[in-house]
Amino acid sequence: MQKLDARPLTDDELRGIDAYWRAANYLSVGQIYLLANPLLREPLRPEHLKPRLLGHWGTTPGLNLIYAHLNRVIRQRDRELLFVTGPGHGGPALVANTWLEGSWTAAYPNTTRDEHGMGRLFKQFSFPGGIPSHVAADVPGSINEGGELGYSLSHAYGAAADNPELVVACVVGDGEAESGPLAASWPSNKFLDPARDGAVLPILHLNGYKIANPALLARIGDEELTALLRGYGYEPYLVEGSEPGPVHQALAATLDTCLERIDEIQREARSAKGPSVRPAWPMIVLRTPKGWTGPRTVDGEQVEDTWRSHQVPLSGVQTNPDHLRQLESWLRSYRPEELFDDQGRPVAELLELAPDPARTMGSNQHANGGLLSRDLELPPVEEYAVPVKVPGAEDGEPTKVFGAYLRDAFRLNPDNLRLFGPDETESNRLSAVYEETPKRWLAERRDTDNHLAPDGRVLEILSEHTCQGWLEGYLLTGRHGLFSSYEAFVHIVDSMVNQHAKWLKTINRLDWRRPIPSLNYLLTSHVWRQDHNGFSHQDPGFIDHVVNKKAEVVRVYLPPDTNTLLSTMDHCLRTRNYINVVVAGKQPQPNWLDWDEAAVHCARGAGVWDFASNDEGDPDVVMACAGDVPTMETLAAVDLLREHLPELRIRVVNVVDLMRLQDATEHPHGLPDAEYDALFTTDKPVIFAYHGYPWLIHRLTYRRNGHANLHVRGYIEEGTTTTPFDMVVRNNLDRYHLAMDVIDRVPSLRSRAVSTRQYFAGQRTRHHAHVTRFGEDLPEVRSWRWSAG
Amino acid sequence: MQKLDARPLTDDELRGIDAYWRAANYLSVGQIYLLANPLLREPLRPEHLKPRLLGHWGTTPGLNLIYAHLNRVIRQRDRELLFVTGPGHGGPALVANTWLEGSWTAAYPNTTRDEHGMGRLFKQFSFPGGIPSHVAADVPGSINEGGELGYSLSHAYGAAADNPELVVACVVGDGEAESGPLAASWPSNKFLDPARDGAVLPILHLNGYKIANPALLARIGDEELTALLRGYGYEPYLVEGSEPGPVHQALAATLDTCLERIDEIQREARSAKGPSVRPAWPMIVLRTPKGWTGPRTVDGEQVEDTWRSHQVPLSGVQTNPDHLRQLESWLRSYRPEELFDDQGRPVAELLELAPDPARTMGSNQHANGGLLSRDLELPPVEEYAVPVKVPGAEDGEPTKVFGAYLRDAFRLNPDNLRLFGPDETESNRLSAVYEETPKRWLAERRDTDNHLAPDGRVLEILSEHTCQGWLEGYLLTGRHGLFSSYEAFVHIVDSMVNQHAKWLKTINRLDWRRPIPSLNYLLTSHVWRQDHNGFSHQDPGFIDHVVNKKAEVVRVYLPPDTNTLLSTMDHCLRTRNYINVVVAGKQPQPNWLDWDEAAVHCARGAGVWDFASNDEGDPDVVMACAGDVPTMETLAAVDLLREHLPELRIRVVNVVDLMRLQDATEHPHGLPDAEYDALFTTDKPVIFAYHGYPWLIHRLTYRRNGHANLHVRGYIEEGTTTTPFDMVVRNNLDRYHLAMDVIDRVPSLRSRAVSTRQYFAGQRTRHHAHVTRFGEDLPEVRSWRWSAG
Repeated sequence: MQKLDARPLTDDELRGIDAYWRAANYLSVGQIYLLANPLLREPLRPEHLKPRLLGHWGTTPGLNLIYAHLNRVIRQRDRELLFVTGPGHGGPALVANTWLEGSWTAAYPNTTRDEHGMGRLFKQFSFPGGIPSHVAADVPGSINEGGELGYSLSHAYGAAADNPELVVACVVGDGEAESGPLAASWPSNKFLDPARDGAVLPILHLNGYKIANPALLARIGDEELTALLRGYGYEPYLVEGSEPGPVHQALAATLDTCLERIDEIQREARSAKGPSVRPAWPMIVLRTPKGWTGPRTVDGEQVEDTWRSHQVPLSGVQTNPDHLRQLESWLRSYRPEELFDDQGRPVAELLELAPDPARTMGSNQHANGGLLSRDLELPPVEEYAVPVKVPGAEDGEPTKVFGAYLRDAFRLNPDNLRLFGPDETESNRLSAVYEETPKRWLAERRDTDNHLAPDGRVLEILSEHTCQGWLEGYLLTGRHGLFSSYEAFVHIVDSMVNQHAKWLKTINRLDWRRPIPSLNYLLTSHVWRQDHNGFSHQDPGFIDHVVNKKAEVVRVYLPPDTNTLLSTMDHCLRTRNYINVVVAGKQPQPNWLDWDEAAVHCARGAGVWDFASNDEGDPDVVMACAGDVPTMETLAAVDLLREHLPELRIRVVNVVDLMRLQDATEHPHGLPDAEYDALFTTDKPVIFAYHGYPWLIHRLTYRRNGHANLHVRGYIEEGTTTTPFDMVVRNNLDRYHLAMDVIDRVPSLRSRAVSTRQYFAGQRTRHHAHVTRFGEDLPEVRSWRWSAG
Repeated sequence: MQKLDARPLTDDELRGIDAYWRAANYLSVGQIYLLANPLLREPLRPEHLKPRLLGHWGTTPGLNLIYAHLNRVIRQRDRELLFVTGPGHGGPALVANTWLEGSWTAAYPNTTRDEHGMGRLFKQFSFPGGIPSHVAADVPGSINEGGELGYSLSHAYGAAADNPELVVACVVGDGEAESGPLAASWPSNKFLDPARDGAVLPILHLNGYKIANPALLARIGDEELTALLRGYGYEPYLVEGSEPGPVHQALAATLDTCLERIDEIQREARSAKGPSVRPAWPMIVLRTPKGWTGPRTVDGEQVEDTWRSHQVPLSGVQTNPDHLRQLESWLRSYRPEELFDDQGRPVAELLELAPDPARTMGSNQHANGGLLSRDLELPPVEEYAVPVKVPGAEDGEPTKVFGAYLRDAFRLNPDNLRLFGPDETESNRLSAVYEETPKRWLAERRDTDNHLAPDGRVLEILSEHTCQGWLEGYLLTGRHGLFSSYEAFVHIVDSMVNQHAKWLKTINRLDWRRPIPSLNYLLTSHVWRQDHNGFSHQDPGFIDHVVNKKAEVVRVYLPPDTNTLLSTMDHCLRTRNYINVVVAGKQPQPNWLDWDEAAVHCARGAGVWDFASNDEGDPDVVMACAGDVPTMETLAAVDLLREHLPELRIRVVNVVDLMRLQDATEHPHGLPDAEYDALFTTDKPVIFAYHGYPWLIHRLTYRRNGHANLHVRGYIEEGTTTTPFDMVVRNNLDRYHLAMDVIDRVPSLRSRAVSTRQYFAGQRTRHHAHVTRFGEDLPEVRSWRWSAG
């Protein structure tokens, strides 16, 4: 790693930047400890202190140091910088800095930049009714909460994408650097186009410790660390020390060099005629003590530069006079009287060091992406619709048709739409998009490669974490995107989805935050069609996972055919502040609804399919279905029943929008009880064929009137590498089983239809035996069409 | 990277190893294609072929090559080797090799090592009723399915732990290498003690392509790749080529060198007096073509050495005579007539190249860990119990007490018990274990460090993925362990838990697989006590996630106090083939049950708490609770109600084992309906205070008689960094709200108790206002004790 000797700061500049740092440190410590007496106008007494000390000091001085220096970069170069805080519990630092520069007060006018506001600022932190300890959505300029660790760098790369003038300074904590998602995101530099995208400047902050352990990257020696970072494709610069003066000079010099190198890379890429080449982007390793400038030792134990400074270094301040004295001298060590005037306002010398109000990192509009976000220009969706004359008579390939729509969406939106996925765009039959845009790839290319280019807008890396992180960063900064993945493996990002849902819930409650484009999932390789892949690829539980989040941010759709998929996706791409989960197969399967029917059905979210029903308003049984395979099996069962038991009155209800099932008081999409009852009846048996784990349907409907009559079939965790028919049989979701369920549950049939039931059971066994013996689905099973019409 | 020039194989050895490789390749292709005519006794015709071609060729020849060479290592050095297959869809290779060496037939005697057995072997692969395409539990010698990618290396390190004589050869796919979990697991070498543990030999197989894309690590150039691997702490050796002869020589030479280096490292560490030092462990980078030895081109397009060889290179064999001819000549290119005798048995020359039956990788007992597994020696748990004279009168620290028990468990089990966690053993108050064993750390140590040593049995790295992978590897090889984590962040490993649950389900159905120790979670930093951490740390949905898996493998416990935690953990550590999720707070909280009561209560899983009930067999209301905080709030509500409405007959039911709520037909722990009704009644209101998302209780009980009377309070996704009382108020789980719920739902109270309800509402507001104003829980709230007794 290179270490620079230059000392670019004049004495005045050095004094200034150090004062700014001290001010931020003072304000950080104040947040952790003080309930009153924010300017230390009087000697510190226990009643000035918070009764519960909730906060984290350890990472704070490092963040404050970097922030102060980035302010200098912004002023000197007039660059637009976004600050991404990777280390956990960075809240005090970012709250302090945004207050110092004015962006906090711009967002929260009551928290003025004076003594009164400083008091509010201190009190609200980690206080009931106040703000959390992380760099949550409450903090202006934040796009990365940092509570669950590991996503800073992928968020940073997502933010830089298609923002050619933006530099994203991303502080990576040495704790989070141990996590899988962070480790996987270093190679993001192979997916950043210096011509079209902005830059990411990673700053790996080696303060050396986590909660109770050293950090691994701080203990492998400089040689291995340098090799590692070069192996990731970066050119690392080292800034280290525990004396503020030299560290200020080294950090300033290094930031200057890095920014110049970024300019140079971008200039070269943007002026060159040929394709962009992948440069070694600069990055910084900053090695400073954890809890720097805090208490060196407490009760005889070293605190600064150890894990003991992680949380609250002096925890006994309310009862231990020594601790209280130590806290006071710690606070006074920052010389607040030099930093704040008599009204508690930052002194003019400090204010001058903050960037122009419009250029502060806290006011960076990219971090409040809804402000900048443009709606997508979407092609007229009905033009992609497939004709359907007889329901179920012909097969469609839903995702292939959607791929054409998506291709044209890319054409209409050259700089604010991206498609993400681990390696499945082709296998999910969305490859029409390659007619408009290739896959992004800045690593080495070969003649045999297909659809790879440095400026592609399809991003594929075999890390669901990185895909998700990039997409989140892209959405949080106001652009649009879609994540296409295997249904089973989207569980890999369960926890990231949690965090994004929490973010969305929070911004819904902040009036200065604007809604951002929705997080859209298209799960096309789903549980029922893992013919090649088998049991490990079979898990429909992501739906269960997302519906635990706040109803206001979660939507789940199960379009059963081509036109309903088109309508659903066209809708989702227009929404904001949701997590839209769309599950739809990529395999050929029957088309049921023409465009007009599909549009109406999707708008309603759930409805009776008249073409398949013969109940004339008074069914003996309701056959409900949600999901493409369950819909096909249900209609096949209807076909069997109508042939063999023609007097049976069947109503078929299809559910596209799963949240319609829930109570209207529980979810904004929930059907009012009267409408639910009108569809499902209050007293008739309902055989519900569902795509996922059957109990989810019970959980969604437990308050409904007819709940006791509901009988759900779905995936019961049985599967392997096998044929589609074997799969539905293993899980009792096949047409024969559904038809038998109807006979078992319609009282009038139980005795009357004994022989029909036996016939169905026999057919089921016969077909299944054939499949198991010969390894192919029977022709009549594979090519089955519902014959109504 | 070093490339070795040595040519250690004699011509005979070279011919032999190449023949072995050809045999495995032949058997792999046969599995993908052939339903009959396994020895190609007649020209290939369409009816010999499987009707559906489900399988993956691309990765197979590389795996077969490595396997053949490792057999040589085993024979020459008499080393015990375990093979871990990282790349996806390695099934054909491992099935072929275990059949060749005899371990497949040992596990499945009907699949004989002759023509008949070869036919069975071919047919069963990816066939209905057969075996999956991955290296699933069905494959002898496997501990890593490889369907969901990224866990091979952490599994390998888990397997090597405490197995000093074992060498784990771990093939890492260049696809999975892009994933976060894999990226995070390279540094596992800082947690491997060359003195106490075995060795891991990573073999990064750069075949260059994924499904439809190049692999990143194959396209960053040798310089960056070398730097990266050295940065991870390895000494990489490169073997590359597309001519079999030179590759055989180079791989043999390199394996010899690596094994010698491993011996040297271990010898040194085991003879040295001082502490172990961290060596640069050897590893191999193997660069060979994807789909090597398969069709070069198909229909004019290059297939070998491109992503097109990923699945089935010739897909039109049933209908396209050219494809069929090409397949036949591909199969015959391996010269099966030289490899198998007239009965289809591998020829003697091949059999000699396989290790002794007891030494084959397929028969490695570590991969069938239940065979080797010893039960833990556990200390007498009752000796750790805390005295409880008056329920709720005194606080306990459950995890601290359990820590002492765990310490002694470590003492009794020096080589087959480990504790894993991201960085929370101390914060979860389990630090008594450090009296017996330190934390494992082989990176640099400093004087200020605490509890770090190269041979510790507590493993902490800030990667839940790596912790989980290590633990799984340790369990799969028959040892015992415990994962202690934040409740919210255990979602990070949701998908890994899925895969482990699927593995357990599978081994339950394989008679030759022995049960392995359970996967135990202790989630102590739970949703209700994230005082410092806030909203991002609040998610109780892991329980919801695991209960979607097969009931036979999933257990969930919510012990409400110290003695119930002891009893629960003591039970879990004795079980096999389960995933045990235990949620229990680390904060001081009331002790309710003495040891005898706790043991009985935990054995029952759910029961009436007589000390808190006054229903005399005929309650007006049942107050149910599950989880420590809900239990405390429920008993506090009972206290309020008994003071203010003394005539109200309350029954308190506490649930420790959540699965007791489910129907006995759904879960082996489910209470029979009569017992459920005896606890909860069929007609009385039940106010259920639950630890997690309230709808889970509905999902578990929807078939129960009294379900319509069930009213559940739980976490409704409201939270921040705040006090415990504020948290329960935000989610309507506080004592006042529960008491008001009772009044609202007991018909006889609704009109009679209006003023009491108002009083409770007022107290709630008053207390909450105090907390919000002063930031501390009210003394009477914090120090509340249930006063019965």
